[in-house]
Amino acid sequence: MRILYHLPLSPYARKVRLVLAEKRLPFELRLEKTWERRPEYLALNPAGTVPTLTEENGLVIPHSNTICEYLDEAYPDISLVGRTLGERVEIRAVTAWFDERFAAEVSRNLLYEKTMKPVAKRGAPDAARLREGYAALRLHMNYIGHLAETRKYLAGANLSLADFAAAAHLSALDFIGDVDWAAAPAAKEWYARIKSRPSFRALLADRVSGFNPPPHYADLDF
Amino acid sequence: MRILYHLPLSPYARKVRLVLAEKRLPFELRLEKTWERRPEYLALNPAGTVPTLTEENGLVIPHSNTICEYLDEAYPDISLVGRTLGERVEIRAVTAWFDERFAAEVSRNLLYEKTMKPVAKRGAPDAARLREGYAALRLHMNYIGHLAETRKYLAGANLSLADFAAAAHLSALDFIGDVDWAAAPAAKEWYARIKSRPSFRALLADRVSGFNPPPHYADLDF
Ligand SMILES: N[C@@H](CCC(=O)N[C@@H](CS)C(=O)NCC(=O)O)C(=O)O
Ligand SMILES: N[C@@H](CCC(=O)N[C@@H](CS)C(=O)NCC(=O)O)C(=O)O
Repeated sequence: MRILYHLPLSPYARKVRLVLAEKRLPFELRLEKTWERRPEYLALNPAGTVPTLTEENGLVIPHSNTICEYLDEAYPDISLVGRTLGERVEIRAVTAWFDERFAAEVSRNLLYEKTMKPVAKRGAPDAARLREGYAALRLHMNYIGHLAETRKYLAGANLSLADFAAAAHLSALDFIGDVDWAAAPAAKEWYARIKSRPSFRALLADRVSGFNPPPHYADLDF
Repeated sequence: MRILYHLPLSPYARKVRLVLAEKRLPFELRLEKTWERRPEYLALNPAGTVPTLTEENGLVIPHSNTICEYLDEAYPDISLVGRTLGERVEIRAVTAWFDERFAAEVSRNLLYEKTMKPVAKRGAPDAARLREGYAALRLHMNYIGHLAETRKYLAGANLSLADFAAAAHLSALDFIGDVDWAAAPAAKEWYARIKSRPSFRALLADRVSGFNPPPHYADLDF
């Protein structure tokens, strides 16, 4: 069986779950408490981060982008990385924007401080980081709204990996109640479309002990 | 003309320069002082980071991994991302290891503190960061040596993007005299092979005002 090692609130693992579900590839989810640094897991992924995917044939695939590129090459029927060279550039660039900039400026400051730090027993959330994270989130929501107003999907006319990368980060923040949807109507309209896809259902059913998502989290009509 | 916006000591820009030279694709280098945040450059790459590549046909490609994947698809004669699915997974995973882990643990602490901070007028190097960077560099050199002893190149039997990603980071650190080659003979043997490739010559000729590389920097027989 295909196995995905994950943490429920990891945006990178969520992105891969969405891609697997869009491609209708069955898989088993396995919780990996990365802070325990299990030697068996480090042997699969020396960075010790989630996600890692293992295939039935023994192939071990660490790192979310490596996994997404692999899945698009191994199961090309439903492609999420684009067809033309230009489309592929835009999709990869927007995906990297979310996985690097949004991650460093927003997810690192809010999600990590509020969820990973307490769980991994690394101290209390840092107030300055939270402030920085909220300020950056407002700018990023405007940018998402701007993209959503000028194109049908975040990287162009077609649904792509870039939408799932962005939605993965936002869904984890939405789980902890940090997204002010009322202030970002264009971003909300785009997110509502992604969130109502069948591939999103499993994410909306996630429960994490110690956290209660706000009522709108799993509501498709939020 | 193809243009690469870069900074001479950026490991990500160096990786792309190596890939372009390996593929024998002519290009013009253009210095981009990222800290000036030029609006014309931000229009090409909203993250404001180097590298960005622009093609003669108008295609704008920001972000080093997006550029490398694009170059391998657009100019596949000399492929650096591998042939089989398994090779491609390993090459992308090892490349990400250097561009994320090595970057965060070593390059961020040494290269950024010593070169980018003074040039961008962001204050003096932080002593704790430097200590952390040197300690991490020793571990990473051992890991590179371990890889180089168990396989011909860092991601397997063939030369690949992973070698250029690693060599790009190391070459920038070597420029500022931070690599203790004597303590890492296996890593040194591998690096000597990469460094003697014709694609490396332009990097070895780099001069950066305010920095004097150690004599061994450009010496192929160091
Ligand atoms: N760039 C990596 C990042 C993965 C990552 O940072 N995952 C986090 C969870 S969101 C993690 O596992 N952190 C645990 C740790 O750093 O020890 C990817 O895309 O897979
Ligand atoms: N992941 C990006 C990282 C690029 C990056 O961080 N570049 C640095 C130089 S090594 C930079 O431009 N920094 C300037 C800034 O952050 O303003 C890539 O691979 O292109």
